[in-house]
Amino acid sequence: MHFELLTKDPNTRARRGRLHTAHGVIETPIFMPVGTQATVKSMTPDQLRDLNVEVLLCNSYHLFLRPGQETVARLGGLHRFMGWDRPILTDSGGFQVFSLSSLRDITEDGVRFQSHLDGSTHFLSPELAVDVQIALGSDIMMILDDCLAYPATHFDAEHSMKRSLAWADRCHKHWAGATNALFGIVQGSIYPDLRRESAERLVAMGFPGYAIGGLAVGEPKPLMYEIIDQVEPYLPEEMPRYLMGVGTPADLVEAVARGVDMFDCVMPTRHARNGWLFTKDGHIVIKHSKYKEDPDPIDATCGCAVCQTFSRAYLRHLFIANEILSSILNTIHNLYFYLDTIRRIRQFIEFHRFDEILTQTRRTGAH
Amino acid sequence: MHFELLTKDPNTRARRGRLHTAHGVIETPIFMPVGTQATVKSMTPDQLRDLNVEVLLCNSYHLFLRPGQETVARLGGLHRFMGWDRPILTDSGGFQVFSLSSLRDITEDGVRFQSHLDGSTHFLSPELAVDVQIALGSDIMMILDDCLAYPATHFDAEHSMKRSLAWADRCHKHWAGATNALFGIVQGSIYPDLRRESAERLVAMGFPGYAIGGLAVGEPKPLMYEIIDQVEPYLPEEMPRYLMGVGTPADLVEAVARGVDMFDCVMPTRHARNGWLFTKDGHIVIKHSKYKEDPDPIDATCGCAVCQTFSRAYLRHLFIANEILSSILNTIHNLYFYLDTIRRIRQFIEFHRFDEILTQTRRTGAH
Repeated sequence: MHFELLTKDPNTRARRGRLHTAHGVIETPIFMPVGTQATVKSMTPDQLRDLNVEVLLCNSYHLFLRPGQETVARLGGLHRFMGWDRPILTDSGGFQVFSLSSLRDITEDGVRFQSHLDGSTHFLSPELAVDVQIALGSDIMMILDDCLAYPATHFDAEHSMKRSLAWADRCHKHWAGATNALFGIVQGSIYPDLRRESAERLVAMGFPGYAIGGLAVGEPKPLMYEIIDQVEPYLPEEMPRYLMGVGTPADLVEAVARGVDMFDCVMPTRHARNGWLFTKDGHIVIKHSKYKEDPDPIDATCGCAVCQTFSRAYLRHLFIANEILSSILNTIHNLYFYLDTIRRIRQFIEFHRFDEILTQTRRTGAH
Repeated sequence: MHFELLTKDPNTRARRGRLHTAHGVIETPIFMPVGTQATVKSMTPDQLRDLNVEVLLCNSYHLFLRPGQETVARLGGLHRFMGWDRPILTDSGGFQVFSLSSLRDITEDGVRFQSHLDGSTHFLSPELAVDVQIALGSDIMMILDDCLAYPATHFDAEHSMKRSLAWADRCHKHWAGATNALFGIVQGSIYPDLRRESAERLVAMGFPGYAIGGLAVGEPKPLMYEIIDQVEPYLPEEMPRYLMGVGTPADLVEAVARGVDMFDCVMPTRHARNGWLFTKDGHIVIKHSKYKEDPDPIDATCGCAVCQTFSRAYLRHLFIANEILSSILNTIHNLYFYLDTIRRIRQFIEFHRFDEILTQTRRTGAH
């Protein structure tokens, strides 16, 4: 994998780049839909390709538990398993271990946890986290990090950050020789000194990309943006930067303005299944009775396949009737909205006018 | 609408025809996937077109209750509402009133019932059943009939059949002038004399097509085939014959051999969602652990998009993980299987060798 920096916006820190992987090129900034269990919920791979999805994120934690990375490997790897021939990024499993499982015990060695599916006990070490991702065959792997809840004291955040660094070092050593890329993850909660130390020591290890972790976990938005601002100068310009688990369309714009290249979030897909649909004028909640006989599309300015064909009235009917097609059509629309937002972001950077989209986003206050 | 009889098999009563409707041509024999609530569960209209689905069945009962036929009419009719530009057949709602709702009262006038959704009370008359379907704008409408449970005494069956005839007459009179086609429905339970009387009196009224109702409601298979055998001679050769709610792939072959042209059944779509997949060698139940690492497609001889891309192992994973994509891919496969069966049936009739597929079906005993 290598990253090509194409151009920089003169008035912000926004960057336009290109990430070359074994499964093809990813234009950046990029939004990665989440395919937790080796499927983006309710989408076929064909539909994702029609949406011009360039890269997916899959969750190692889920695939480790079911069907198991060895099973996936014996079936030819994750790409073949799920019928997706474009790039895949996998997380390390750490975040889900900390958020989904019954946590049993965390030591310097790794983390022992109980499966949220059946209560079975497992142990995840930094080395195993890398091995799982190598078995899955993802194009971009993530180090195992210690995921701290918000808020945390400086003392706890420092301890956690240092453990993450130790694990990063073990992941880095274990990764040596693998063809998959491995990204480091900057931690340190909301403390600038810890964030700086984390970033500098990760950069000293030398990763082909860097993520900012531990954000969008409950802290106020301005604080999230501030942390990105503070971390960015310590990340090498020639490497991609990935803001994990973020966010709203406005978050994408704000983070791109601060030098971030990559995003993933369940928001477009999860919100779709809950009938929350993005539009250029804010969101609509499709179940509302005011849409019962509304013949208009979700968003008259939207170019997605759903807005070309279906009325809000039909989409409301499907949602109320609890039909699977509701999730499908809503997901197509919301993913299109996110990917269209990213395409607009790229264009504004190419024209060196990113401040315009930033101003516009802040003025409308949408999302 | 008019029906063109193209050829007849010399050794059976199988027929190859063509039904011309306002929304296009339907080749017969035909299988109609069921789109109960104005959607074939888990399928987009594009996917149905890719499968070469020629006509859908939608349920008036469901659309009458939600969103209401007037709403659908104000939104441009059912075709526009659900984004489907090919033919649609609607049932009258009678079958669901008798099977789903809390039945309150049935009189010669019609039937008063409680909605299965919210308990609200409604009254369906033969005239309203026609009006609902005209409002929906279906290409082929069905008369309201009295749907009798199996088993029934000759006395009850006669009473029910005569009520159905009276309702058929009222539907026929009310329909006068509508451009949508209206099919009569032969009733009479398992009694040949009642079936004959029902058929002869419906034919005397003059409908553009005839259905055989009241079968596949629990009676033994041989009895169902026998009733079809007995009814068929009383139906005009130049009109299409529709066997309602049937059936397995073998049922299609057996009924085509007895002169039936049209079928609908929830089996391929409902079974798909339950992980029951049709193959040329019988069905497979995809959740079984033996498929955990099975790299083969559902059916190596199948030409569907799912069998070209996905392994049984992946489909099992999706089913076990309760993923929406499981329903989607399984439905694509099962519908393809049914439509492929129908295409093979047509070819064998065209070659005047339908007895071969009949023999083959009986020998393998599949489904």
